[in-house]
Amino acid sequence: MNFLRASGYRLLLFLVFAAEVPSAQSGKVLVFPVDGSHWVNMNILIKVLHEHGHQITVVRSASSWYIKEESPHYKSITVTLPEPINIEQEDFFTSFLSKMLEIQKNGWSPLGLVKFYMQMLTNLHKMHQQSSHLVVEIFENLDLMTQLSEERFDLVLIDPGLPSGVMVAHKLKLPMVYNVRWITSGEGHSVVAPSPISYVPAPGSLLSDHMTFRERVKNIFYYSMNRYIDHFIIQPEYDKLVARYFEPDTDFFHLLQSADIWLIRSDFIFEFPRPTMPNIVYIGGFQCKPSKPLPAELEAFMQGSGDHGVIVMSLGTLVKALPSEITSEIAAGFAQLPQRVIWRHIGERPRNLGNNTLLVKWLPQNDLLGHPKTRAFVAHGGTNGIYESIYHGVPVIGIPLLFDQFENMLRLQVQGAAKVLDVTKLDNHSFLAAVQEVLHEPSYKENMQKMSRLHKDRPVSPQDSALFWIEYVMRHKGAAHLRTDSYKMPWYSYHSLDTVQKTEI
Amino acid sequence: MNFLRASGYRLLLFLVFAAEVPSAQSGKVLVFPVDGSHWVNMNILIKVLHEHGHQITVVRSASSWYIKEESPHYKSITVTLPEPINIEQEDFFTSFLSKMLEIQKNGWSPLGLVKFYMQMLTNLHKMHQQSSHLVVEIFENLDLMTQLSEERFDLVLIDPGLPSGVMVAHKLKLPMVYNVRWITSGEGHSVVAPSPISYVPAPGSLLSDHMTFRERVKNIFYYSMNRYIDHFIIQPEYDKLVARYFEPDTDFFHLLQSADIWLIRSDFIFEFPRPTMPNIVYIGGFQCKPSKPLPAELEAFMQGSGDHGVIVMSLGTLVKALPSEITSEIAAGFAQLPQRVIWRHIGERPRNLGNNTLLVKWLPQNDLLGHPKTRAFVAHGGTNGIYESIYHGVPVIGIPLLFDQFENMLRLQVQGAAKVLDVTKLDNHSFLAAVQEVLHEPSYKENMQKMSRLHKDRPVSPQDSALFWIEYVMRHKGAAHLRTDSYKMPWYSYHSLDTVQKTEI
Repeated sequence: MNFLRASGYRLLLFLVFAAEVPSAQSGKVLVFPVDGSHWVNMNILIKVLHEHGHQITVVRSASSWYIKEESPHYKSITVTLPEPINIEQEDFFTSFLSKMLEIQKNGWSPLGLVKFYMQMLTNLHKMHQQSSHLVVEIFENLDLMTQLSEERFDLVLIDPGLPSGVMVAHKLKLPMVYNVRWITSGEGHSVVAPSPISYVPAPGSLLSDHMTFRERVKNIFYYSMNRYIDHFIIQPEYDKLVARYFEPDTDFFHLLQSADIWLIRSDFIFEFPRPTMPNIVYIGGFQCKPSKPLPAELEAFMQGSGDHGVIVMSLGTLVKALPSEITSEIAAGFAQLPQRVIWRHIGERPRNLGNNTLLVKWLPQNDLLGHPKTRAFVAHGGTNGIYESIYHGVPVIGIPLLFDQFENMLRLQVQGAAKVLDVTKLDNHSFLAAVQEVLHEPSYKENMQKMSRLHKDRPVSPQDSALFWIEYVMRHKGAAHLRTDSYKMPWYSYHSLDTVQKTEI
Repeated sequence: MNFLRASGYRLLLFLVFAAEVPSAQSGKVLVFPVDGSHWVNMNILIKVLHEHGHQITVVRSASSWYIKEESPHYKSITVTLPEPINIEQEDFFTSFLSKMLEIQKNGWSPLGLVKFYMQMLTNLHKMHQQSSHLVVEIFENLDLMTQLSEERFDLVLIDPGLPSGVMVAHKLKLPMVYNVRWITSGEGHSVVAPSPISYVPAPGSLLSDHMTFRERVKNIFYYSMNRYIDHFIIQPEYDKLVARYFEPDTDFFHLLQSADIWLIRSDFIFEFPRPTMPNIVYIGGFQCKPSKPLPAELEAFMQGSGDHGVIVMSLGTLVKALPSEITSEIAAGFAQLPQRVIWRHIGERPRNLGNNTLLVKWLPQNDLLGHPKTRAFVAHGGTNGIYESIYHGVPVIGIPLLFDQFENMLRLQVQGAAKVLDVTKLDNHSFLAAVQEVLHEPSYKENMQKMSRLHKDRPVSPQDSALFWIEYVMRHKGAAHLRTDSYKMPWYSYHSLDTVQKTEI
């Protein structure tokens, strides 16, 4: 009763505020997405903007993998790259994974480690090369530049994982909003907010915010390596462009740091607490929504599981197929369970598949995770799937494969909401034991449901926050008062080192 | 039209979210306020909580100045201090101001500067002594402690400017929410968020976020002085209590840093952009509301001003009266204006008062600032008045007198929304010139109205945010996931200095 009053009150206040806020005209938004799973959530944001009357133009490459040329929600500008490298093909990541597994299987020898990073860096470099080629194609196409300029966009919405859009936004002198989790070599915050290395784990370090002394030393190593990658692998790719197309003394990282609003795809239910900035808005889980009813056939399968319930498995969009020696171990593990299993599986059908396991090429993941019969989720740890499991309160068995999946899973593990497996060591016994632990140890479900309650308890939903702040930048033509210029200081001034030196002289 | 749709959508999303959020039971809140102008806004928060069905208990001292024993909105617990010092008497601040003016009038000699700070530190120390006596009185009163414990409060709401409530909350093992702008020697952020001294101005420094090299050196000086005050003047007062009443190795600053939510009474329309933390919520201006109609007599006075309009003047609640040599200069300045003036003035009536000037003992400040005839506000720069002028978009002539008023005014000045005067150099010419500049140079009003638009354009009102997060802490019994424990590290570990040393050995 009291809460109803409180809601009513909040509603009233909300309306009072809404009425005083200047109206957002129908805006024009230029979008620079990143392909693959990143596109999945950028596309959700685009649909929301479209539904609110904004006009969207998406820049895509002709060899794009997920980003379609035609859509009811956006116009597109297709740029043909002179030497399209195959990063936008599904096989790219699948073969990347095979190589990574190969290296890991041989143990973490120093040589293995070097190979692992060389492989990773080579691919990272390729992706940024592609992104920089995109900028050249746009800047050198004078008709296109005139067209972009005459469109009078209100803002550029960018996934700065590949920052080609940043260059174009600056050339067009337009405000920028980022839809971001990863940027250059680090997590979004690392570029825009102070990140004390004593308690903010560096990407790749697989550390939490509570570190022993040895772990802090390890964290410094990873932090330094990320800075190295930024400055010696990524920055040169864009410095060439900056030198060619911008005023002298323009710094690529300053361009990158000057976004008006950073919509960061996480929140502090999932992420460790850490410093943030006034122009950061947390939209983690903005893609989540209540589940819809399943197709009749799938619903029948779910109901047929009885009290045992169902396990859902999907390893995401990036990797086409796991090697068959791994899938057969998983299949054998599943076969020993009384639960039913729905497994999104592409590639060769494991020979030892149990009768309880249904293979599908695609599954309505959100609707399955929200189904009352679902007991656990076997996942790779992409942010989209992680947030869907948090939203629906479904505990996770994690099989991280690439990139940020390891640290995403770590965050669920620290909260006691996931059991994480090493894919290189996985066999049917260890897999079965992990699944059973998550099913039968109540703390996994309890912890995930606590995360779910906390995640949903915010004054404005993540999707609504994203929309509000994009329209805010339209209304006020930027948000300069929310961002610091301090990144423009030389690093020794930022850290006040010059004052020490000069004061002492 | 588009905006209406957007509002409707936000409304819908809001309702969906509100429906999923666990209900906040009627909660029990124990409040430790700070007297004077701080109480004015704490009391507003108390009323809001009371209106939402929560039960409030306020702890006050028997010699309290503003905090009444009886209220329709709260119960009170009155603690009698053994040697009440006179900080809670109006004369305290008036005589403090006289001494400060005396020192400043003689110019900023090194001796003057020392006297100024000795005076300030003596008073600061007295206030903290009083706050620490309050804790002793509570802890030594076993009946009271039993009563507090048996009340089973949900949280303690504290203005940590004087942190007695922090000790009590820890003793009772209760979650803490702060309603804060100033804490110990610094601004609230300084205790809870990274504050790089290269662009975050230290309290007292009167610097902005863009500093020259010399200013950065000056900032380090003020930063160091504040740390000195923290550790040698304030902390010892509470360390005595901590040693007496808490486990060994308890650190006063750790107790202070462990609040679940920091409701900070500013926002980034007013404050310079700077790092923040996940458990900080900005509620600057939460006391502001649309103006109500004026009493008939006052309305007639306003309308009688014709096109010239009215100037409103108030120097707040802290100082009873300015010295008469200053008020007579102000009166002479006002007398030369075609505008009418409403002046909240206590004390001797200036002899040279113009016919255009109405003296009042109290004025409905918010209703006057929201009145269409109001052209400018002559103010001392307390946060309450500053936010009312931002809310209503009224440009300011600033006469800061004490404490944070100087830096509050600086923030309006940097935005081009206020002209600031030095009270020790004020004469009728300089005063008149300042008022005329603010009246006739359109940028003052335009800048203030821009601030007003930005201040009001947020997804949830500041008051509503405050209520939401207080109830959030009730619902979840704290907000541990939003706060870092990193303050528990030794400073050399926090700054990773130990890793350098040990790694090099």
